Amino acid sequence: MTAARFALSDLNAASASDFVAALAEAFEHAPWVAEAAAAGRPYPTVAALHDAMVTAVRRSDAERRLAFLRGHPELGSRVRRADLTGASQAEQGGLGLDRLSAEEFDRFTRLNEAYRAKFGFPFIICVRRHTRDSILRNYERRLHNDAAAEFERALAEIALITRLRVVALVDGPGKPATAGRLTTHVLDTAAGRPAQGVALSLYEIGGSARGLLAQAVTNADGRTDAPLMSGEPLRIGTYELQFAIGHYFARAGDGFLDLVPVRFAIAEPEGHYHVPLLATPWSYTTYRGS
Amino acid sequence: MTAARFALSDLNAASASDFVAALAEAFEHAPWVAEAAAAGRPYPTVAALHDAMVTAVRRSDAERRLAFLRGHPELGSRVRRADLTGASQAEQGGLGLDRLSAEEFDRFTRLNEAYRAKFGFPFIICVRRHTRDSILRNYERRLHNDAAAEFERALAEIALITRLRVVALVDGPGKPATAGRLTTHVLDTAAGRPAQGVALSLYEIGGSARGLLAQAVTNADGRTDAPLMSGEPLRIGTYELQFAIGHYFARAGDGFLDLVPVRFAIAEPEGHYHVPLLATPWSYTTYRGS
Amino acid sequence: MTAARFALSDLNAASASDFVAALAEAFEHAPWVAEAAAAGRPYPTVAALHDAMVTAVRRSDAERRLAFLRGHPELGSRVRRADLTGASQAEQGGLGLDRLSAEEFDRFTRLNEAYRAKFGFPFIICVRRHTRDSILRNYERRLHNDAAAEFERALAEIALITRLRVVALVDGPGKPATAGRLTTHVLDTAAGRPAQGVALSLYEIGGSARGLLAQAVTNADGRTDAPLMSGEPLRIGTYELQFAIGHYFARAGDGFLDLVPVRFAIAEPEGHYHVPLLATPWSYTTYRGS
Amino acid sequence: MTAARFALSDLNAASASDFVAALAEAFEHAPWVAEAAAAGRPYPTVAALHDAMVTAVRRSDAERRLAFLRGHPELGSRVRRADLTGASQAEQGGLGLDRLSAEEFDRFTRLNEAYRAKFGFPFIICVRRHTRDSILRNYERRLHNDAAAEFERALAEIALITRLRVVALVDGPGKPATAGRLTTHVLDTAAGRPAQGVALSLYEIGGSARGLLAQAVTNADGRTDAPLMSGEPLRIGTYELQFAIGHYFARAGDGFLDLVPVRFAIAEPEGHYHVPLLATPWSYTTYRGS
Repeated sequence: MTAARFALSDLNAASASDFVAALAEAFEHAPWVAEAAAAGRPYPTVAALHDAMVTAVRRSDAERRLAFLRGHPELGSRVRRADLTGASQAEQGGLGLDRLSAEEFDRFTRLNEAYRAKFGFPFIICVRRHTRDSILRNYERRLHNDAAAEFERALAEIALITRLRVVALVDGPGKPATAGRLTTHVLDTAAGRPAQGVALSLYEIGGSARGLLAQAVTNADGRTDAPLMSGEPLRIGTYELQFAIGHYFARAGDGFLDLVPVRFAIAEPEGHYHVPLLATPWSYTTYRGS
Repeated sequence: MTAARFALSDLNAASASDFVAALAEAFEHAPWVAEAAAAGRPYPTVAALHDAMVTAVRRSDAERRLAFLRGHPELGSRVRRADLTGASQAEQGGLGLDRLSAEEFDRFTRLNEAYRAKFGFPFIICVRRHTRDSILRNYERRLHNDAAAEFERALAEIALITRLRVVALVDGPGKPATAGRLTTHVLDTAAGRPAQGVALSLYEIGGSARGLLAQAVTNADGRTDAPLMSGEPLRIGTYELQFAIGHYFARAGDGFLDLVPVRFAIAEPEGHYHVPLLATPWSYTTYRGS
Repeated sequence: MTAARFALSDLNAASASDFVAALAEAFEHAPWVAEAAAAGRPYPTVAALHDAMVTAVRRSDAERRLAFLRGHPELGSRVRRADLTGASQAEQGGLGLDRLSAEEFDRFTRLNEAYRAKFGFPFIICVRRHTRDSILRNYERRLHNDAAAEFERALAEIALITRLRVVALVDGPGKPATAGRLTTHVLDTAAGRPAQGVALSLYEIGGSARGLLAQAVTNADGRTDAPLMSGEPLRIGTYELQFAIGHYFARAGDGFLDLVPVRFAIAEPEGHYHVPLLATPWSYTTYRGS
Repeated sequence: MTAARFALSDLNAASASDFVAALAEAFEHAPWVAEAAAAGRPYPTVAALHDAMVTAVRRSDAERRLAFLRGHPELGSRVRRADLTGASQAEQGGLGLDRLSAEEFDRFTRLNEAYRAKFGFPFIICVRRHTRDSILRNYERRLHNDAAAEFERALAEIALITRLRVVALVDGPGKPATAGRLTTHVLDTAAGRPAQGVALSLYEIGGSARGLLAQAVTNADGRTDAPLMSGEPLRIGTYELQFAIGHYFARAGDGFLDLVPVRFAIAEPEGHYHVPLLATPWSYTTYRGS
């Protein structure tokens, strides 16, 4: 994570125009949001600042709100990529939405068209909280919403998107928690001690493929030196941890257990997921721990 | 399994030529083996009959024994398929050795050439006891043997191959156990009862692909009505059982656990592998049971 | 269990007076129950015969029914023991109700007096389905019932008591299941095989003491040759199984685990309780299995 | 723990007689030990200071060493209590050796006599590292030692005893770790979260009785606010943790599991023992964790 660029105390003391300029990137193409928030200063916390901006959107008149929603880029739309703000580009790029296959591009295009035809604004989702599979699943579910519910949902997603942006821009007390954490712990229950030296790999399990996200080796306490994922929202989706237990027990290729796959879903991007493994060469237990 | 075609008591009482004709298929292109065994009748058990035939091979002179080994077909050799006895054809076909890709065919061809150049007879292995991956692993390992060790190994494999054939041909007391068994049992430890209605799939995990071997749904006792594999030797290799736990707990797609994969190796083709799952929506335990 | 003394087919064919004589012991001091049931013959199953006798009690007039309830012995009443039928004596003796300490005798006496004062008949419970602790707990709970609910409860207990007696007296098709079963299974998950030679002890855990009920050693399959309890109703109560795991792992006195106690309650006297242990020298898992 | 009374830096700078006076209590009735250590100053760590004192004992001549051993009090000897230094009195009192029953007193007396007859000095053991049962077991084992082995063993115990005393007297860098720790963690694997509000009790399991050592209730993370034992050496012996799981699952008295006892041995007084429980109303797993 790069350091936030502004101190909340400086923003509280700045001129209105400097305040608006500083936060311009947070709400795309809508400087009026920062303008409205400028009047409510000073803010005691970063969360209060963000809340004020979200409230400005909610309180704006219907026409402006709709124009605001329409100002968002369409998901996976390569042809319109030039219009994205830097922030949108980075977010969608992180998910690989700028590297879609022709087939995936077509699927997104069809969904985008159906969605815009039904609701009159583009599909908005906080992509940094989702895997590609989760986005598609949400897309297909939300197409069944009625207009009012979907309007609310779009605003809620904007709150999530801009919360991440405000947190990245502004430093100060009361920053909302936006990062999740995935950790593990391997115990050798045949020997009654932490399992040191177990190689493990973390994959995202997608509809079409699996992607390697992280690799690590357990230390003397049976843990990894750093969390397997952290510092960002965890993407909602399905994951698989593979533990090279056979090699640890010096039985690779010969024993009953070799690579132990543990597959699980993440549903809370800001949560702490602890997924331990208690193993012998012949058995194991895994669970969501704490 | 089809019924054996001969009763041991009938073979004990038959003329020598009828005896030899009956058992011709057991030792490929080597009627002298049955001829030697005919003299030792009566045999109290099917195992004793088979032992006598194996002993006949071992006691034959070196030249005949080598000719006997050379009479075996090469593994995965499409061009020589016409030479296979019906039994060899069925055994290699079951493994898909008659459906090799060009690349796999080349790999087998290179191994066959290297093996024959070193040992002077074709690579012999009881294919019905191995997955394709296990055959390749054995092939590469056995190429490092010295001539004496490998000669012993080839005879041991012939004993395994012909044991299966004799057991298929002859009925009577004392049949050697040649079939393994894979079973499972799913317990819902959140509710303290067997988990009924869990869909499960068994895959073979190969170097290049995974093949679906069986599917079943657990019954009121949390077991499958029939073993997942039985009636044959289990093929040495790596397997994965997938339990649709998320659907059972009515949380598919939303819960922490959805498909639970349990990956394990089978090393004893004639063994009983019991692989139970004790599960809640948030945890599970698996082990080699009995 | 001793063999039942009468065949249902013989009872169906017997004279009414022989029928009544045969079943006299089932309903204490109430030959009229068997007399009523004699008229309904033939009975296709033992269960149908017993149902008919219970129905005869339910259909009798209020005075007779009350007299019938009053004919039952008081629990733990040493002074009236001479009045018990042989069956009542054996049932109460099995529980140790004839070996009460002075304090326990006083407690039962007080409960008996309070109960009789409130309901006008003695407390009736199928003692063979309860530990002493469970009887006391039930006694104290049932004292809070209103008269109608407790009258129903007393009849339900009589049905349970007499079902056991009829099953002991009469052989034939359709015998109700009256016996429960407690079994175990010990797996050595460090070695991936059944744990053979584990000594285990079963205790009843009572308010004041613990009583040893059974001892066994696991066989080659990690099970005991016979169930730990069977052939009778399991007594509702709290139990503790102790597994001598330390000795099995040759670490008695030195290891982390030595005697592993597993404490559990039995609530279904006719149920099957399977309580396995999956153990290493450093860990174990236990659960209600099947 | 009370604060140590002297700073190592002060002791390094003190006059020899002040140094000796400060440390007099560490080695009972043997001021010559501190005198020898005074000459080796300055000591960089508390551990180095203690090592120097132990070395002084080892290097002293045989007669003095024997006199030193003989200066130690006999275990459990009420009649000689007046001779104990304050430190010895506190240590033996903590174990209840000053509250022995007549029978226990006799047993210790017989052991003391046998030991002194064989070895010529009293039985010395670091009582703060042992339960009473562990002391008796050690006593009976050590009686079988030969003189040389037992002499070494007595000196090793003196090093352990005096290490605790020096650590209590002197503050400074490099204090040896003398305290162990027992912790637990309860997870509700039916709900996939820490089990908050589980009452638990820790008992010492002795030959004749069980003593309650600690009680606690789990917090929001499923842990206890403080370790169950800490700040002192853990006493070698057998313990039982009882978890009130039935009450937590709102099934006390009715469910399959109510009080879950976990019995384990502690063998490393300075170690960290983590004993978690993963529980549902019907199953649990426990293990030595980290």
